[in-house]
Amino acid sequence: MADIARSLELIKRGTDEVLPEELLLKKLQRQKPLKIKAGFDPTAPDLHLGHTVLINKLRQFQELGHEVIFLIGDFTGMIGDPTGKSATRPPLTRDEVLENAKTYEHQIFKILDPAKTTVFFNSSWMGEMSAVDLIQLAAKHTVARMLERDDFSKRYTGGQPIAIHEFLYPLIQGYDSVALKADVELGGTDQKFNLLVGRQLQEAYDQEPQVVITLPILEGLDGVQKMSKSLNNYIGITDAPEEMFGKVMSISDDLMWRYFELLSFRPMSEIDAWRNGVEAGDNPRDVKIRLAEELVERFHSREAAGKAHQAFVARFQKGQMPDEMPEHSLSAPEGGYPIANLLKDVGLVKSTSEAMRMVKQGAVRIDGERIEDQGLMLTAGVSQVLQVGKRRFARVSLS
Amino acid sequence: MADIARSLELIKRGTDEVLPEELLLKKLQRQKPLKIKAGFDPTAPDLHLGHTVLINKLRQFQELGHEVIFLIGDFTGMIGDPTGKSATRPPLTRDEVLENAKTYEHQIFKILDPAKTTVFFNSSWMGEMSAVDLIQLAAKHTVARMLERDDFSKRYTGGQPIAIHEFLYPLIQGYDSVALKADVELGGTDQKFNLLVGRQLQEAYDQEPQVVITLPILEGLDGVQKMSKSLNNYIGITDAPEEMFGKVMSISDDLMWRYFELLSFRPMSEIDAWRNGVEAGDNPRDVKIRLAEELVERFHSREAAGKAHQAFVARFQKGQMPDEMPEHSLSAPEGGYPIANLLKDVGLVKSTSEAMRMVKQGAVRIDGERIEDQGLMLTAGVSQVLQVGKRRFARVSLS
Repeated sequence: MADIARSLELIKRGTDEVLPEELLLKKLQRQKPLKIKAGFDPTAPDLHLGHTVLINKLRQFQELGHEVIFLIGDFTGMIGDPTGKSATRPPLTRDEVLENAKTYEHQIFKILDPAKTTVFFNSSWMGEMSAVDLIQLAAKHTVARMLERDDFSKRYTGGQPIAIHEFLYPLIQGYDSVALKADVELGGTDQKFNLLVGRQLQEAYDQEPQVVITLPILEGLDGVQKMSKSLNNYIGITDAPEEMFGKVMSISDDLMWRYFELLSFRPMSEIDAWRNGVEAGDNPRDVKIRLAEELVERFHSREAAGKAHQAFVARFQKGQMPDEMPEHSLSAPEGGYPIANLLKDVGLVKSTSEAMRMVKQGAVRIDGERIEDQGLMLTAGVSQVLQVGKRRFARVSLS
Repeated sequence: MADIARSLELIKRGTDEVLPEELLLKKLQRQKPLKIKAGFDPTAPDLHLGHTVLINKLRQFQELGHEVIFLIGDFTGMIGDPTGKSATRPPLTRDEVLENAKTYEHQIFKILDPAKTTVFFNSSWMGEMSAVDLIQLAAKHTVARMLERDDFSKRYTGGQPIAIHEFLYPLIQGYDSVALKADVELGGTDQKFNLLVGRQLQEAYDQEPQVVITLPILEGLDGVQKMSKSLNNYIGITDAPEEMFGKVMSISDDLMWRYFELLSFRPMSEIDAWRNGVEAGDNPRDVKIRLAEELVERFHSREAAGKAHQAFVARFQKGQMPDEMPEHSLSAPEGGYPIANLLKDVGLVKSTSEAMRMVKQGAVRIDGERIEDQGLMLTAGVSQVLQVGKRRFARVSLS
């Protein structure tokens, strides 16, 4: 029983909600491997650290002896956009789905144990489903409850059209839990409604309902918006070691603790000890390095982590990069921020013509790398250290 | 062109709406047989005159050379009530559906020409439909437009649950028009929303939309509520000749003109001439007899109509039934109105004991038939002529 209490504690780390916790405890007490389901969109196989918050939680379940079901929701992807309104959502072919699945597997098995992971495609049962079956599924939920979902409710009251098939998709996602007899389903907080539909449908099909565990949406490098490729504030899990290391080192100290909780596999007791140390005067940069090393090691290797660390030290610490420097948050114009204007705007030079001259002389660096293009445009996302000559530094976040 | 104008006039007789009339004109001008669709519920094969308002309109189309599609909506009937809430809607078996279809055919071919009528079952295409097809169908309509349907709107705002599959049924009914490539669909005014869904779906599937023709709901013998079996105010098309004749003769003079418009096949010009005659002093009973004869002839034979007429005359006119008599509308208690109380309440006797005595003496008649049961209970529905002795008459409507 002490083990189960410890398991429960571990599972709850970093989660937003566990619904209901009593049922999770009951399922754990049975001492049998549970089926842990997580659904993934077949169209976006490039994972970043934001996605790994959930995958890390799956890994914890595996470490506790449970079976992970990695469900690729290819059925709706293969239908495309049946309203015909969006030209950007063409149906995926079977081959594309399988190719995306391989890309997924290649990435997730950097975190998950392949021996305790089963990949499923929901087209295998949904593709066989008849209209009659779907009607019977649709009979198990009401219009009013569906309209309680935040986005539906906003669109309905705002006069934005909701096509009727959109009401069917949460039911299909929920039915996947029925087909899989899932014990637990994980998802982002934005998926809570759909995950609860799964619980309700399992009950309607006379199954014990799944436990729903929601995980927070990870903030991107800016610490404000959610990590996303389109906001360019992400760390991709296939990023090169030095790039990954540098991006981790660029985050704020506050965000570092958040990343530790959600991304590190170190015990919370250890992380708490480090936090106490920093509060007592330790340099947070040294702790941040541990996070950067852990992540590079996970997605590359211990050796790559060591090299990235050394390169970082060589570039910054040996270049006498100061511990403290002015910080600026600016918003980048459409098309990017011209380097000359940026240097002037943050006060590293007095004029754009001085900026041009300094670039020409090879005296301007971004994150330690000398730049040569006087017309360089910087885009929003990663925070960067700008350097002019040996003394002038500024940390800049563009949004 | 003159022919087409006349056809249009004939088609419009007694209709509630023709949507849109211009399109009907355009379709008629092509001088090709049109497909005229009407859908029927597979569960209620006992037709009454209320149903024939629509069937008569189908017959008019046949007379103009068009093809009638008698569609039996067996698909949803074979699903039953998938919410499982109503024990009273068990799924129909294939055999039951076929049996009901035969009962339908037997009845409708008293009005329709079998050579120009095709009976379809929507299970033939819906039974083959996959979940994917149904999702694509559901994508072609919106939640907001579905919630505009009167009954959905009332239930939604009144907090009554609407199961999601209920939103699919109007789409399936509309899809039947796509599958059949219907040119025109007929239905009651209460079906207008669903018929318009058919138009919209045909456009979404790149077909010329059907013309929607709605027909009024026929009032029952009481002239107030719609004709229905459960209200016992109906004339069944399998009613025996004398019963049918008597029921027609029992309706009010006002209702008679309504029935002429919607149920008679006589030209409106002839009916209008009779109406002018009655307004000028002709006895409306003589006109009513023509309606009664026409209907009995349609559902039985000319000979049966003649006999029913003679029997009616023998019973009423030879019994010196007065042209005018007191009329009473009363509401029947649960379980029926005891004859003794009724006779007293309408003033034909002074007390229930006098009533009992009169029944015992054989002096009480209902619609000319002597009654012998002192405990007879009268139920709501048909208006009846009560008679005590030779002089005392009253016409009574129970509701």
